[in-house]
Amino acid sequence: MPADPAETGRDILARADALARHSDSPDHYTRTWLSPAHRAAAAQLAAWMREAGMSVRTDGAGSVIGRYEGATPGAKAIVTGSHFDSVRNGGRYDGVLGILVPLACVAGLSRRGERLAHAVEVVAFADEEGARFQTSFLASRAFLGRFDPALRERRDAGGVGFDEAMREAGLDPEAIAANPRDPATIAAYVEVHIEQGPVLLDEGLALGVVTAIAGGTRHRVRVAGAAGHAGTVPMAMRRDALAAAAEMVSAVETRAKAAANLVGTVGLLEVKDGTGNVIPGEASFTVDLRSGEDAVREAAERDVFAAFDAIARRRGVAVESRRTHAVRATACSPRLQEALAAAVASLGLPVRRLPSGAGHDAMVLAEAVEAAMLFVRCGAGGVSHHPAETVSAGDAGLAAAALGAFLRSPGVPAA
Amino acid sequence: MPADPAETGRDILARADALARHSDSPDHYTRTWLSPAHRAAAAQLAAWMREAGMSVRTDGAGSVIGRYEGATPGAKAIVTGSHFDSVRNGGRYDGVLGILVPLACVAGLSRRGERLAHAVEVVAFADEEGARFQTSFLASRAFLGRFDPALRERRDAGGVGFDEAMREAGLDPEAIAANPRDPATIAAYVEVHIEQGPVLLDEGLALGVVTAIAGGTRHRVRVAGAAGHAGTVPMAMRRDALAAAAEMVSAVETRAKAAANLVGTVGLLEVKDGTGNVIPGEASFTVDLRSGEDAVREAAERDVFAAFDAIARRRGVAVESRRTHAVRATACSPRLQEALAAAVASLGLPVRRLPSGAGHDAMVLAEAVEAAMLFVRCGAGGVSHHPAETVSAGDAGLAAAALGAFLRSPGVPAA
Repeated sequence: MPADPAETGRDILARADALARHSDSPDHYTRTWLSPAHRAAAAQLAAWMREAGMSVRTDGAGSVIGRYEGATPGAKAIVTGSHFDSVRNGGRYDGVLGILVPLACVAGLSRRGERLAHAVEVVAFADEEGARFQTSFLASRAFLGRFDPALRERRDAGGVGFDEAMREAGLDPEAIAANPRDPATIAAYVEVHIEQGPVLLDEGLALGVVTAIAGGTRHRVRVAGAAGHAGTVPMAMRRDALAAAAEMVSAVETRAKAAANLVGTVGLLEVKDGTGNVIPGEASFTVDLRSGEDAVREAAERDVFAAFDAIARRRGVAVESRRTHAVRATACSPRLQEALAAAVASLGLPVRRLPSGAGHDAMVLAEAVEAAMLFVRCGAGGVSHHPAETVSAGDAGLAAAALGAFLRSPGVPAA
Repeated sequence: MPADPAETGRDILARADALARHSDSPDHYTRTWLSPAHRAAAAQLAAWMREAGMSVRTDGAGSVIGRYEGATPGAKAIVTGSHFDSVRNGGRYDGVLGILVPLACVAGLSRRGERLAHAVEVVAFADEEGARFQTSFLASRAFLGRFDPALRERRDAGGVGFDEAMREAGLDPEAIAANPRDPATIAAYVEVHIEQGPVLLDEGLALGVVTAIAGGTRHRVRVAGAAGHAGTVPMAMRRDALAAAAEMVSAVETRAKAAANLVGTVGLLEVKDGTGNVIPGEASFTVDLRSGEDAVREAAERDVFAAFDAIARRRGVAVESRRTHAVRATACSPRLQEALAAAVASLGLPVRRLPSGAGHDAMVLAEAVEAAMLFVRCGAGGVSHHPAETVSAGDAGLAAAALGAFLRSPGVPAA
């Protein structure tokens, strides 16, 4: 690692640019699991890992794992990494930053011939977003031997089967999770990631220590009223499904604003057979509620659905909802949070703790080992999963410096 | 006309059933301008008119016009009628009732050999809904020589051109409005129509006298906020386009409820690229405002758009709107309203005056002659433009009795 964090940061960003050239599309950055671009990116990452003095292997799901031995060969490893697949038309730092920052740290150790008490492993997870087969955390689950074989029945948008895609990439679908990593060999997991939100940007801070990864539920809600002629049905006689749904959208927003550490979003709303001159007879929408604290989210859910029922009763419409997604919150390891906070403070930076509203591979790793996350400020208003996503070289350099301090800190469990 | 109004009503409903068999689709009732079914329906109507003692002609737009001479041949006519095209998958009484009710009246006059001071003309307008070429009031406009030649450039959903459709039906597109009806030969226009709403049904009344045909405007509104990750952007930092739009939908409803003789509808709302886990960056919706009194509607419009601006300012989103449709209210002739009211009262029925929220051919006729409308109770919750649309035989018979009384009443201008 060069002495100047900004220079390290510039190198990290240059590598993110280089890696983004491996895209499924010539027009924008999209990299889906096992596509030719994805395989080329994997090869590039493996080459950089070797260059940084790591031994490299690829696991059954196509993840690339580089290991930098500690002072005692075979010691437990601090595992750090993130994913190198992307959403469609995504941003080049999402996931990738969490591979390139530790790579820079290990390159520095290697250049100085420095060995730590523990090994350091950098894992480039092959698939987190799951854009190709509509999966979630495919690679981190496979890494721990927790792959769901039912996924092998899936086909991608082009009709290619899961197994076929694996075989084309030289992988064996039978062996995708055949050699799970033993958690007992992992001292800790830490993931560096862009915040994907505006909190650090808004507060003028480069880094944040993640307290928890939010749990969340998603519901699909359907409101049935009575369609009618927009000109002939007096207001008092209407059972307008959209007017009811609009009041429900406001209820979600109002309730979500009423609690700290809670967000609520209606991302989709549709009027069935909607047209300008007909009173809507049916409307449906989604409700996404998330919190770092499950009790906070569960209370909000009860209130929101009670409000829906009250609105529906008052308006004479029917409402029904169906849960389509649910995941509990993941608390980050308190001890690792302290070590990350100390590392951030050692750079003279204020320590900001914040929850992660988005899901990350750390959620899966936390099921088996102690896990924590370091957030890096996201530019451009905090936008992510979008070509406008940015990270500054300075912030990337500070992230590498903080992770480097963390890897050396006494608070991190060693062998 | 049989002595028993209920028997007349049953005859009218039986004819509506028979006419509905002439449909573009075997599965549901759809009759579009100049389709084979439409032409068969026109032939049936002409046959019924002749059977009722009328001379029959077809005009340039395919409307069928039956004339029953008064005591003095060539006298001014009371013109009465409605349309016999339909919306897709419509109801069999919409329009058609306003042809079959006067047909029954004239059949009664003819059977008794009764001649009035004026002629009676029954006009079956060939196209009011305009489902085929996306027109409005095509036939009533052509009847008065007010056809817009630009419509001849249009094609239907099957690619058939306007002129080609006319020629296939044996009509000359050059002559569609070549022989306009001289308004000076029309003593009055009266249109019988199902209410297409629930007011009479709700109040237990068979008939209503229309005070005005509502004017209305339609706007398309677009709200632009900032898209973002549903998990990572705190509530206080959001500029959610859908949350803003939902508040605007509620503002339309609240304002419309605050005035009598006003309705406001958001019939369509769309979230651009909406998906469950993304804060909506853009939403658009329609606003339909109608009133029998233009001043009432215009005041509501000012308030609604001022509310939109205030909501947008407070939330930091942009709002823009575009007017896509505007028509002023049409007052019904006070003198003809009185004559209709007297006719309804002569049957021992209460006189309920109400505006029409929907547009009708009477709006076009009112530009040239005195016009009025008689509403008939709509069953099935007031639903129209739908297969569930119903009218009872008793109500149809009362409508014929009231129209018969109207045609004879001294308050109606004669020659």
